[in-house]
Amino acid sequence: MKKIKGIILLLCLCTTVAAEDGHDLWLRFRLIDNPQLLATYRNTVAGFVVYGNSPTIAIIKNELNKSLSALLGKAIKENSNPIPSSLVVGTPSSSVVISSLNLNEQLSKVGAEGFVIISKTTGGKKITVIAANTDIGALHGVFDFLRLIQTHQDISNLNKISFPKIDLRILDHWDNLNRYVERGYAGISIWDWHKLPDYIDPIYTEYARANASIGINGTVLTNVNANALTLTSQYLEKAAALANIFRPYGIKVYLTARFSAPSEIGGISTSDPLNDSVQTWWKNKVQEIYKYIPDFGGFLVKANSEGQPGPQNYGRTHADGANMLADAVKPYHGVIMWRAFVYANANNEDRAKQAYEEFVPLDGKFRDNVLLQVKNGPIDFQPREPFHPLFGSMPKTPMMMEFQLTQEYLGFATHLVFLPVMFKEILQSDTYAQGKGSYVAKVIDGSLDHHSISGIAGVANIGNDINWTGHPFGQANWYGFGRLAWDEDLSAATIAEEWIRQTFSNDNAFVSPVKSFMLSSHETLVNYMTPLGLHHIMGNGHHYGPSPWSNSFARADWNPVYFHRSDSMGIGFDRSATGSNAIEQYFPEARRAWENTETCDEKYLLWFHHVAWKHKMKSGRNLWEELCYKYYNGVDSARKMKDTWVKMKPYVDSERFEHVLGLLEVQVKEAIWWRNACLLYFQTFSKMPIPSGFEKPDKTLEYYESLKFPYAPGN
Amino acid sequence: MKKIKGIILLLCLCTTVAAEDGHDLWLRFRLIDNPQLLATYRNTVAGFVVYGNSPTIAIIKNELNKSLSALLGKAIKENSNPIPSSLVVGTPSSSVVISSLNLNEQLSKVGAEGFVIISKTTGGKKITVIAANTDIGALHGVFDFLRLIQTHQDISNLNKISFPKIDLRILDHWDNLNRYVERGYAGISIWDWHKLPDYIDPIYTEYARANASIGINGTVLTNVNANALTLTSQYLEKAAALANIFRPYGIKVYLTARFSAPSEIGGISTSDPLNDSVQTWWKNKVQEIYKYIPDFGGFLVKANSEGQPGPQNYGRTHADGANMLADAVKPYHGVIMWRAFVYANANNEDRAKQAYEEFVPLDGKFRDNVLLQVKNGPIDFQPREPFHPLFGSMPKTPMMMEFQLTQEYLGFATHLVFLPVMFKEILQSDTYAQGKGSYVAKVIDGSLDHHSISGIAGVANIGNDINWTGHPFGQANWYGFGRLAWDEDLSAATIAEEWIRQTFSNDNAFVSPVKSFMLSSHETLVNYMTPLGLHHIMGNGHHYGPSPWSNSFARADWNPVYFHRSDSMGIGFDRSATGSNAIEQYFPEARRAWENTETCDEKYLLWFHHVAWKHKMKSGRNLWEELCYKYYNGVDSARKMKDTWVKMKPYVDSERFEHVLGLLEVQVKEAIWWRNACLLYFQTFSKMPIPSGFEKPDKTLEYYESLKFPYAPGN
Repeated sequence: MKKIKGIILLLCLCTTVAAEDGHDLWLRFRLIDNPQLLATYRNTVAGFVVYGNSPTIAIIKNELNKSLSALLGKAIKENSNPIPSSLVVGTPSSSVVISSLNLNEQLSKVGAEGFVIISKTTGGKKITVIAANTDIGALHGVFDFLRLIQTHQDISNLNKISFPKIDLRILDHWDNLNRYVERGYAGISIWDWHKLPDYIDPIYTEYARANASIGINGTVLTNVNANALTLTSQYLEKAAALANIFRPYGIKVYLTARFSAPSEIGGISTSDPLNDSVQTWWKNKVQEIYKYIPDFGGFLVKANSEGQPGPQNYGRTHADGANMLADAVKPYHGVIMWRAFVYANANNEDRAKQAYEEFVPLDGKFRDNVLLQVKNGPIDFQPREPFHPLFGSMPKTPMMMEFQLTQEYLGFATHLVFLPVMFKEILQSDTYAQGKGSYVAKVIDGSLDHHSISGIAGVANIGNDINWTGHPFGQANWYGFGRLAWDEDLSAATIAEEWIRQTFSNDNAFVSPVKSFMLSSHETLVNYMTPLGLHHIMGNGHHYGPSPWSNSFARADWNPVYFHRSDSMGIGFDRSATGSNAIEQYFPEARRAWENTETCDEKYLLWFHHVAWKHKMKSGRNLWEELCYKYYNGVDSARKMKDTWVKMKPYVDSERFEHVLGLLEVQVKEAIWWRNACLLYFQTFSKMPIPSGFEKPDKTLEYYESLKFPYAPGN
Repeated sequence: MKKIKGIILLLCLCTTVAAEDGHDLWLRFRLIDNPQLLATYRNTVAGFVVYGNSPTIAIIKNELNKSLSALLGKAIKENSNPIPSSLVVGTPSSSVVISSLNLNEQLSKVGAEGFVIISKTTGGKKITVIAANTDIGALHGVFDFLRLIQTHQDISNLNKISFPKIDLRILDHWDNLNRYVERGYAGISIWDWHKLPDYIDPIYTEYARANASIGINGTVLTNVNANALTLTSQYLEKAAALANIFRPYGIKVYLTARFSAPSEIGGISTSDPLNDSVQTWWKNKVQEIYKYIPDFGGFLVKANSEGQPGPQNYGRTHADGANMLADAVKPYHGVIMWRAFVYANANNEDRAKQAYEEFVPLDGKFRDNVLLQVKNGPIDFQPREPFHPLFGSMPKTPMMMEFQLTQEYLGFATHLVFLPVMFKEILQSDTYAQGKGSYVAKVIDGSLDHHSISGIAGVANIGNDINWTGHPFGQANWYGFGRLAWDEDLSAATIAEEWIRQTFSNDNAFVSPVKSFMLSSHETLVNYMTPLGLHHIMGNGHHYGPSPWSNSFARADWNPVYFHRSDSMGIGFDRSATGSNAIEQYFPEARRAWENTETCDEKYLLWFHHVAWKHKMKSGRNLWEELCYKYYNGVDSARKMKDTWVKMKPYVDSERFEHVLGLLEVQVKEAIWWRNACLLYFQTFSKMPIPSGFEKPDKTLEYYESLKFPYAPGN
């Protein structure tokens, strides 16, 4: 009884001591609050043995030491040899115990990063084994095992093998050297370039640990809108300090290459990729980089896009540019991630078509250490887009997926939206490139076209806010990206539940309602922002809030009016045969679902077609009524999400409860803003009333058009 | 024994739960670790009674509830009536108990913000009384009482009265609307303008609480380099949301006024302060502001300085400009804080003289709700400056002190320097304006010239870093400023000790060595940066690192060479009668300590004189040798500071120990950089060797001159 009192006192004081600021992410390792489960876990894990001797092994020991003790509420000690109920971690090469368990068949499948977790009996002792071919694999296994406990899974009779299908699982940071994060909504960059390399902020280790816990194995430190100074020794020394922190966690550092660097910092008159001295400059620069960072991953390049320099400035092709850099990093096993996000100001062609036209002719012309990094959709990270037509269309080129975790077009860090739902929608899309079942996922993991290298990138939503991502639920998108990159077959529901249980609570009264609104949150946001295939009608430049009326940019395809094309007849962008015919870039079987206005999947209707206001929808409503229905439905769902959260109060600490509640109130307010502004504007074309029964907009269109946000973040 | 075990378990788990990230500042309220003291405190405070009913009273109750229980390790309950050993808090008007204690005499002295803390016996019960004339005064008393406990003082027989001598005790935030903080080195602004007024970050309350705990009663939210948008309804609504949070803590909101606002956002062709429509515009704007913020404090104005617009643009005087704004806020009891930091590009006069020449003729011409805000020294927040000659020279005008807490010229947030030492050096300087004893402190508090209003401002060193100030010891400068503003008679030693005990530990083995290096840290920094009166030899623009050779600005008085004036003869700025004669702006008795090269206080020697390299110093060394001695001495002291900190490991949590250690390593490295770069450069003029016995610079002058920092923060 006294002991219980001790623990109660402990909990109450801890909450006053430890504000729940969300900094712990999903790695909270709180005491298991289910007494029965706690007892069985204590029986299964009485101690641990870790074999091997490396910085990674030291990390594993420290992690088990701290986390197991915290989860099980008693000191779980490290032993030099297995005792009954030991957790045993190691590789066949580091441990006779492991090698004697003949796990060769399983280990032959898991590669350098995967692991085996299996319950065994050896010498009469029941033990749990985490085996891998490398210490990094073992680290991944340890985090997976801790996740099983944190999510209250049965660990008494384990037999699982796990390994990533995708080689490069990378976070792209659009972080500038002055710590400003382009499209960042969670403070400024966690990279404190000014204090590096001398002061090593603990957050660098926390960042590596968090990524290792979900299997992310690479990070691009710098913005794709690149700065040549990144490649000077002053900054390479700083990047090297970060690489040294990340290395034992199995995370490689990548940098963005400013294509004109030879002219900007190399003192060469040109940066023509076919020029000998340019090629030599890059070879020497790469050699210098590998002196600083022996396991440097390679370069991410944005070239000839939105004002960035590139090979076309010198009359060369993207292949010429990518191959020059590929040759420079090849001797060190580096890779080039070349972005396909290109569209020309001069080019009047439908922006959705330009990347395909640019790159398909180059298929087969890239070196084997070049990956083409393609955004999930053909425009630019909209709330919903069809998959990019390049997927499946360049079989000879490894295609790398680029998802955006930071919510540039999705309400910044104040809107709760669980993105893995959208990621799955894209990954499960069928390109039909090699017939039925040619899913985008298979293009990305390389299995469709038998590539030896594969990759997936997420544009980070991380900043120096105490909780990393601004919105507490933004952490779920970072977590979900990592989990999907490791295993694209995981369902969004599984990922959401894992995250909720680790981050908040294992109480089903909390898990089930929160999981359910997370899974519907993407559709909710699409409905109040851009339903039925609408896209890019956000505020010009900063992309904050609704601005379908905007037409201020000289460049047509930066203006909302270019994308929704509303007129007295109807609304939508005709990308069918009668229009830009962008639809032709898809394979016939894929196209079929979209090409006919009558049969088109309505969630993409206005993406592919200009449709009459009176067009009859599957619901029986006409298009205008359906548009109204969707916008109002989106607001209602946002309100329901908030109402559900209010009911969750008993299950959450007050700090995170209030934080999420405050943001949900903003989200509902902004959802109403979106609905009212868009419908009042589109109504000037449809000339039809908002159907009766719907609450009327409380402000005028003029009011919404008058709003200005010169200091919206991330711009 | 079991209970002890429980508590041990508690402590060990809490440390894994609560990272010591410094976010708690000096308000940590950890369990009293001295058992005897704990027992006596528990005997003295068995419960508490708080009289009254207001948001401030609610804050007091919540503070006592949480903090007393945490300090005393048991629930200290609120009672409706005094019990034996009660803490009793209230005002005579809110409590018969208080009014019956006849504290009228004491209360008559403490005004609206002060308090009385006294041990009393009433109805046979021994109680401790915190009495004040207002709820805000009571709140100040409560924080003072908690400080007594946190610093392990005897509270058994208290009899103290405390009240501020200075009316306005204000933090100036140089924060822009995009959250960039000019001269900020601790992340970005804590004001999240984008999410305001909808999302109220808990940090706003934490900020108000921290300031109230040290008696700060005002905050200027926006940068003195002002943005007219601050005055639009969109932003006033946001400022009002902050004011609502701050109000119950006794903190008023102030804004910076862009002098050209009438033309920029008012649609008026001029902003001439004598123009009727301009005056009307400001009157209406002020009326609007007070609708949003009924207790709005007033405006801080930087006019006709460094490119900011002002009355002189329209041929008017600073008095004309200040008085126009003063008339607008007068009906609402608002004030105008008009900055004296002006110097003209056109003007070739010694920059140190210009503010005096500009403002002394205007003495007596300002409205009675105008304060002239003057930086501590005549140049610009240098590591050491003599006091500003305006202090004492404008007896008819209330002079407000402006100190800089953010370390623009003092190594940013990576150098440990305890600024209250420097603040005291200034406050205790004798202006001799009314004869001996006319201290700067008496000018500021208004007592010398019998002003009815007085003020002191600190330019905040606060950002969104988890620990608020970047350097854990930066918190001591925020704390120290607040404590000095409340009581200018407090010694730097007292303030340092208070802060150490609350922030780190009451163990004398920690307190005494740390206090001693804090007290010498300012002299240490002066010695390795700008000894003997040198000033403004930092990197151009960003002010990071040594750059005495810089001469790149078209504007002479932005260049280091303008300030040190080294040549083959000697070094220093002749401000004596033979030079710019800036010294004449001081009263004769003050001047006397400086005017003669032979007798000049050597810490200001090169500030006032151009001195021959072979000039004999009091030490017997010549000037060049003395310069070397000072620079080497500064580096040695920085190294000793680091060595002392290393010995403190047993007394500090690992997080803050490692953080401070890492920064001290940077400080030592940069101190060596300063010493080597400056001496190698000045040596090109002195042509004398660095005395034997001193370690020789390991890099060349060319190397130091080649260093570039385009992304140094805060610029």
